[in-house]
Amino acid sequence: MSLPALHDLEVSIPGIRIDTDPETLKMYARDQGPVQELIDPLAVVWAESVADVQETLRWASRTGTAVVPRGAGTGVSGGAHATRNCIILSLEKMNRILDIRPGDELAVVEAGVVNADLNDAVTPYGLMYAPDPASYKISTIGGNVATNAGGLRCAKYGVTRDSVLALDVVLADGTLIHTGHQSFKGVAGYDLTGLFTGSEGTLGIVVGVTVRLRYLPSDVRTVAAFFPDFRTAAAGVLAVGAARVQPSIMELLDGATMAALDGAHGSDLGSRGGALLLIQTDGFGAEAEAAAVRAVLTELGGTVSSEGSEEAERLLELRRHSRGDDVEHEIRVGEDVAVPRSQLVHYVAELERMAADHRVQLKVVAHAGDGNLHPTFWIASEEGAGGVERLNAALDESITIALRMGGTITGEHGVGQFKLRWLPQEQQAEVLALQQQIKAVFDPAGILNPGKAIPEV
Amino acid sequence: MSLPALHDLEVSIPGIRIDTDPETLKMYARDQGPVQELIDPLAVVWAESVADVQETLRWASRTGTAVVPRGAGTGVSGGAHATRNCIILSLEKMNRILDIRPGDELAVVEAGVVNADLNDAVTPYGLMYAPDPASYKISTIGGNVATNAGGLRCAKYGVTRDSVLALDVVLADGTLIHTGHQSFKGVAGYDLTGLFTGSEGTLGIVVGVTVRLRYLPSDVRTVAAFFPDFRTAAAGVLAVGAARVQPSIMELLDGATMAALDGAHGSDLGSRGGALLLIQTDGFGAEAEAAAVRAVLTELGGTVSSEGSEEAERLLELRRHSRGDDVEHEIRVGEDVAVPRSQLVHYVAELERMAADHRVQLKVVAHAGDGNLHPTFWIASEEGAGGVERLNAALDESITIALRMGGTITGEHGVGQFKLRWLPQEQQAEVLALQQQIKAVFDPAGILNPGKAIPEV
Ligand SMILES: Cc1cc2nc3c(=O)[nH]c(=O)nc-3n(C[C@H](O)[C@H](O)[C@H](O)COP(=O)(O)OP(=O)(O)OC[C@H]3O[C@@H](n4cnc5c(N)ncnc54)[C@H](O)[C@@H]3O)c2cc1C
Ligand SMILES: Cc1cc2nc3c(=O)[nH]c(=O)nc-3n(C[C@H](O)[C@H](O)[C@H](O)COP(=O)(O)OP(=O)(O)OC[C@H]3O[C@@H](n4cnc5c(N)ncnc54)[C@H](O)[C@@H]3O)c2cc1C
Repeated sequence: MSLPALHDLEVSIPGIRIDTDPETLKMYARDQGPVQELIDPLAVVWAESVADVQETLRWASRTGTAVVPRGAGTGVSGGAHATRNCIILSLEKMNRILDIRPGDELAVVEAGVVNADLNDAVTPYGLMYAPDPASYKISTIGGNVATNAGGLRCAKYGVTRDSVLALDVVLADGTLIHTGHQSFKGVAGYDLTGLFTGSEGTLGIVVGVTVRLRYLPSDVRTVAAFFPDFRTAAAGVLAVGAARVQPSIMELLDGATMAALDGAHGSDLGSRGGALLLIQTDGFGAEAEAAAVRAVLTELGGTVSSEGSEEAERLLELRRHSRGDDVEHEIRVGEDVAVPRSQLVHYVAELERMAADHRVQLKVVAHAGDGNLHPTFWIASEEGAGGVERLNAALDESITIALRMGGTITGEHGVGQFKLRWLPQEQQAEVLALQQQIKAVFDPAGILNPGKAIPEV
Repeated sequence: MSLPALHDLEVSIPGIRIDTDPETLKMYARDQGPVQELIDPLAVVWAESVADVQETLRWASRTGTAVVPRGAGTGVSGGAHATRNCIILSLEKMNRILDIRPGDELAVVEAGVVNADLNDAVTPYGLMYAPDPASYKISTIGGNVATNAGGLRCAKYGVTRDSVLALDVVLADGTLIHTGHQSFKGVAGYDLTGLFTGSEGTLGIVVGVTVRLRYLPSDVRTVAAFFPDFRTAAAGVLAVGAARVQPSIMELLDGATMAALDGAHGSDLGSRGGALLLIQTDGFGAEAEAAAVRAVLTELGGTVSSEGSEEAERLLELRRHSRGDDVEHEIRVGEDVAVPRSQLVHYVAELERMAADHRVQLKVVAHAGDGNLHPTFWIASEEGAGGVERLNAALDESITIALRMGGTITGEHGVGQFKLRWLPQEQQAEVLALQQQIKAVFDPAGILNPGKAIPEV
């Protein structure tokens, strides 16, 4: 693509903001995922309306320009990284909440609405938008849909997919389509809403989202339990399940994570145990459920917060804001595997063994209710190439073992660019081929976020 | 296809049961949906293993034979109706529960396992398979997946899709693929599990299903409330929502439905009100929720069952078994629209108006928590062609109005054959075309359940 082509785009959409300033390009060249090769986009384009998106895609189709859609750029798999000769299409200015319909328990939003802003807007109605990735204060609903984001509350309320009723999507050729329905249920035709959800911008640009809202719980209880080690804490997760209690949140932090929090926030978690389990129950049964949880965890040897103590809630807040601790002089890579629940304990034991075998540092947090773990491996930068090799070996092994246990390479962050190398380990060739053919149906010229989510043909 | 071709199939799969007996063909020619043109299949084939299904599809691909998969044949949209020159591939003998993993809260079953049998098998573990179509005692998990069946409990626990983690699917060419994962969460690649769910046998044959199990609730409470008329009862549904109580079940029956039940079971519902709302709450908060429900409904003027009364549960049982009342001398057609919740009251008012306008009889039951209504329209057979015309006019209008309110032509039964004529009213041409292209990816020769779920090209 040449500058005249960009000029064409400006002419097609009077007043559209297009930026080719090197500073801006740098800023929009990547999301928060690991970068293999940093590539600057040709331009950043900010859509302000559905028509802008349509016109941009018509132009991209004409000129054969790759389009990388971007919400807030908080993704951690490189899904929003710029690729060669692409433009970044930012949805961040399409941030209007179009409709809140309390009687229908739904809301209609533009893709660029920030998750927390939607929640703030519906709280006065006694409603909530349940999916709450830890990035909820900054990430967009469009980005959440494109990654099928999880979150803390999804132990009880499900992931983004479970709260999406309908989508407005602009296809590669600029066509605007509507999928789904504004009723809670509906089975007319194939589930295109589900197909777009989690497709990481490779099948179409999500411009509008109709979400189902849930009831703000009448009561919320939080329990914190310190355990001597991670394995016992993980056993606590299974014990709560065995007691047939379904918490809304069930987060697990290991000793190294607590040490990091202590370092960042001056807390003293590390002195109180080797692992921390944070559990929230909600709804009419919250108190009874919390009591059952406390009983089970005490029985298991946990040091459990007493009823009415506010500390547990403070700890959960700390956990919510615990990610993204970029540390200088260290090379860190975060993972996102999920395993069948009963494997939690074994998987963590394996992680500890791997870290020792490969001589890398390890910390782990987990959305434990869903068996979704975020191990972070790291080395000191000064360890150089040899260190990176060990780091990669540990990463690879952590994936292989998760898959062997029946798990997945990505519980919620998406494949993006970074996890493509592991996808063929999880999915058979025939399944990959089917997905490539589906991609070709939606995007025959391959201009939508090429090289992301699934391997290129 | 000729008899020699069938003989080939027998040779390919030694011992396979193939039946061409006219009686059998008649029995397997249709499901419980309306029949436009009764067509006998060429043969009925019973698969007993994944290999049988693969071999049958290889043979069908070679011979260009259409394959109509069939579970229990309880579908009500004609999805399992035989089409011209097809074989019926019955999964009913693939009825083994392959694995129950209480620690992972999942089970793995063959497609032909009956819904109730799975539930019976997991109850001893304190677990349940949540999706419970009213046909749960006879319909198969494979059929439930293929239709994305709803049920009574899905107000709280979601539809079939929400309980399916992974699928084993045989494609048109006989290839066996695996989608999904055995963890609760997972976002690797496109959501093929969701795409197959609800695809009514048009994209592949489901042979194995990994389902998520939920906790058997610690407590269950049922509330019955009689109202003078349907509209007030529907307002009760909204009032319970406004009280921010999420029941597991919320069923609404109108006067004509109660009269039918009275006729069939000798009950006296009709004398007690013009509409009945049945609500179940479950879990640790069940009692408090039931109390809140009773308060709200009493306030609204309902005659509400008292705490501890067993009648409400008996009524719910009655409701569970209330479908399928084929009446001689009448032509009946059941509908399955869903509307946004706030429209429930208006929609019912419209239904009553339509029935009067078109001079047809009407009764309505609704999975009201989800805004999913099953109106049944009927005429006396003796009314002849003119009556059928009025019946169809009422049906058509009921669909148009549901769509105008933001609803869908099918909340849970599927499009099958019967609802194809309305699909273009709900979905734009571009969306239909995309689905046809997806179908072509999975089934290029068009042998899988042709003419169902989406319009043929
Ligand atoms: C501190 C922190 C905590 C996090 N916690 C969680 C967590 O708990 N759970 C979780 O799941 N993730 C988490 N994440 C990851 C990230 O926030 C999510 O993936 C989020 O959904 C991305 O939203 P975004 O608006 O930033 O999208 P982006 O990063 O801009 O984009 C993400 C992907 O979606 C595509 N995309 C974006 N918008 C659209 C659109 N409108 N149409 C089509 N495609 C689009 C992009 O091309 C890219 O592939 C966390 C990240 C950080 C930095
Ligand atoms: C009394 C009664 C009550 C009902 N209540 C409900 C209800 O509450 N909620 C609800 O949603 N439905 C209900 N139904 C409809 C019906 O029971 C459901 O659609 C059910 O899911 C069908 O299951 P089945 O095994 O009978 O499938 P079938 O009727 O045999 O087939 C249904 C569709 O799925 C396809 N199919 C079947 N098995 C497979 C497979 N293994 N792989 C691929 N495709 C396959 C068929 O080709 C067909 O298109 C009810 C029906 C009756 C008769």
